[in-house]
Amino acid sequence: MRRDARGGRRHTGAARALLYAHAPRWGRALVARLRGRRPLFVCTIAHTDTSRIPGLSAAGATPALRELTPAADAEALYYGRARCLHGVPSNPLGPPGPAIITIAALRLARIPCLVVDAGTRVRPQAPTVLLGERPGACITTGRAVPNAAELFARGRLLGRQLAGCADYLVLAESVPGGTTTALAVLLALGIDATGRVSSSMAENAHALKEATARAGLAHLAPAAVAADPLQAVAAVGDPMQPVVAGLLLGAVGRAPVLLAGGTQMAAVLALARALAAREGMVLGPRRVAIATTRWVLTDPTADLPGLVAPLGTYPVLGTALSFARSRYPALRRYEEFLVKEGVGAGGAAVAATLAAGVTPGQLRRAAERVYERLTADDA
Amino acid sequence: MRRDARGGRRHTGAARALLYAHAPRWGRALVARLRGRRPLFVCTIAHTDTSRIPGLSAAGATPALRELTPAADAEALYYGRARCLHGVPSNPLGPPGPAIITIAALRLARIPCLVVDAGTRVRPQAPTVLLGERPGACITTGRAVPNAAELFARGRLLGRQLAGCADYLVLAESVPGGTTTALAVLLALGIDATGRVSSSMAENAHALKEATARAGLAHLAPAAVAADPLQAVAAVGDPMQPVVAGLLLGAVGRAPVLLAGGTQMAAVLALARALAAREGMVLGPRRVAIATTRWVLTDPTADLPGLVAPLGTYPVLGTALSFARSRYPALRRYEEFLVKEGVGAGGAAVAATLAAGVTPGQLRRAAERVYERLTADDA
Repeated sequence: MRRDARGGRRHTGAARALLYAHAPRWGRALVARLRGRRPLFVCTIAHTDTSRIPGLSAAGATPALRELTPAADAEALYYGRARCLHGVPSNPLGPPGPAIITIAALRLARIPCLVVDAGTRVRPQAPTVLLGERPGACITTGRAVPNAAELFARGRLLGRQLAGCADYLVLAESVPGGTTTALAVLLALGIDATGRVSSSMAENAHALKEATARAGLAHLAPAAVAADPLQAVAAVGDPMQPVVAGLLLGAVGRAPVLLAGGTQMAAVLALARALAAREGMVLGPRRVAIATTRWVLTDPTADLPGLVAPLGTYPVLGTALSFARSRYPALRRYEEFLVKEGVGAGGAAVAATLAAGVTPGQLRRAAERVYERLTADDA
Repeated sequence: MRRDARGGRRHTGAARALLYAHAPRWGRALVARLRGRRPLFVCTIAHTDTSRIPGLSAAGATPALRELTPAADAEALYYGRARCLHGVPSNPLGPPGPAIITIAALRLARIPCLVVDAGTRVRPQAPTVLLGERPGACITTGRAVPNAAELFARGRLLGRQLAGCADYLVLAESVPGGTTTALAVLLALGIDATGRVSSSMAENAHALKEATARAGLAHLAPAAVAADPLQAVAAVGDPMQPVVAGLLLGAVGRAPVLLAGGTQMAAVLALARALAAREGMVLGPRRVAIATTRWVLTDPTADLPGLVAPLGTYPVLGTALSFARSRYPALRRYEEFLVKEGVGAGGAAVAATLAAGVTPGQLRRAAERVYERLTADDA
């Protein structure tokens, strides 16, 4: 930050690159501590059969391709494109998925990444840390993730090790249908999340999501969740949630954590906070924040800060990245909220700014180059 | 290092903690560069059916338990003890396996660790990066690791990422029967390894190992190896070898690498060097060394420096750790060469000295405490 002739602050591009949507004072303090430090990006992938309910998810061009989305995102992180499908997972209306942003951000700032498989139907053709072999069932069954406790324990063990590998962790996800499982888990944990979770579609199917969540919650006794918050996941969550909550709690004593995602990460944060409380610990707001995209923060159909507020003064950060001035019509459609977040795109962008001063303009151009390479393959 | 009254050098415990068995000048230069830096320990586990040949391996108390050794070592790294068997894998004559040293070293110096599964019969009940799902066949078939090229490619991808997570990597292994596959691969690559590989037994079964290796090599045309060094692994290697060679070549451009093991790592180094040469590159001795135990370096039945010498001036480092003065008879038997190396024990010890100034005496006492906890469970 420099001062101009009138003594006022003239923000550099990097300073303007970040948005502070909740607990901005804590957010700025965390940003100051992490600037120039070395992050490790960890993307946890999972499948939930909840994504098979028609109309819930657009994280994939077709229902059949959506089953491949977690694996394809993981492959794209390593290879710059998927192996099990062409390009990267896309929205049915055409825009490429958020993996193009993540790939661009990690490469620009030379941030290392690892993929964790919490339970998938299709395994990536790429190196992954295998923590669970069981995909999530549909949450309407009320028995979505029976191995939630084991996933949490393994995530925590791994988080302890990974915290020694970096100055801070950026924890991302790829889970089609994940905002519905987030809604259900938030409701199970007593957070008023109705109408507040985001969506992979411009038209957020709030009514369908709520009906789905309520069908699952009917199987769950509130007393069970009070005794063990993992029961919320076991009944109506997805396999990513206990793994990332475990990574967070395993790491946070040794390294700060950015939860890279939208409202799905509010559910992870609520879960981790409840699990810490069960052990008599407080998950303080000094060492954990949510980092997401401008599209999530300005999503007219969702309210991420409103989900985080009842949890505490956890910062919600955002990247100012915009595709409004992109030369590619498909990317400009992000500004219509056709794609908002996923594969930790927002958190990767924030980390790239913190680690290497990457500006939104540089990141847009790098994402365009990733997209160009994918479409050049089509020719 | 301090100077005494006579102006001579008085070595501190940490300086005397290290041995230089080959290319000492390069070794000291590398040590100077790595001292105080942050390592990441990565143990690659695999199974080879070669270990089922009676009399080849003592990496496990019984033949049945030997099948569990890679998984048990991986679990012990995370939990301090195995889950699939009691304690840690042991020698049939009683001494606990080298995992007690690795656990002690990593904990003393707070070195993070990851486990990579290259192909096992029994999967660890712990987080692992799954790179291959196929255990190695017996090398006498001449078709031991048909997926060697894929394992190498995945290891290389992962190595590139892991190199961004640390100042240097320490690459370890747990593969019962691995000195026999090492012998076979070294011979296939044209290194005169006869009678030079080490063993998990005091009585090194050189004749049996050589007969086994030769039976496999009979299936392999030297021209095939000259065209593609991975053919040596595909015919007579084990799944760990291409993964660790890949990790090494993926990482070494960004971070130095200590190959943590005995003569098995000479085979990995020979393989990596040949693979680099195929791409017109030279794997220089400034950024890679082998780090092992005193027991390997003084093993009267093996010759690690003699295996490395024809490859180049790659340093061979050792830890001065000794159990001669241990209070436990079972540990003192290490000095009879009943156990020598494995799970990267020597490299972990070297890294603990470099990272935190851990002395051999501190490490011996810490390993004794790990052993005490295991035997306390028996009571």
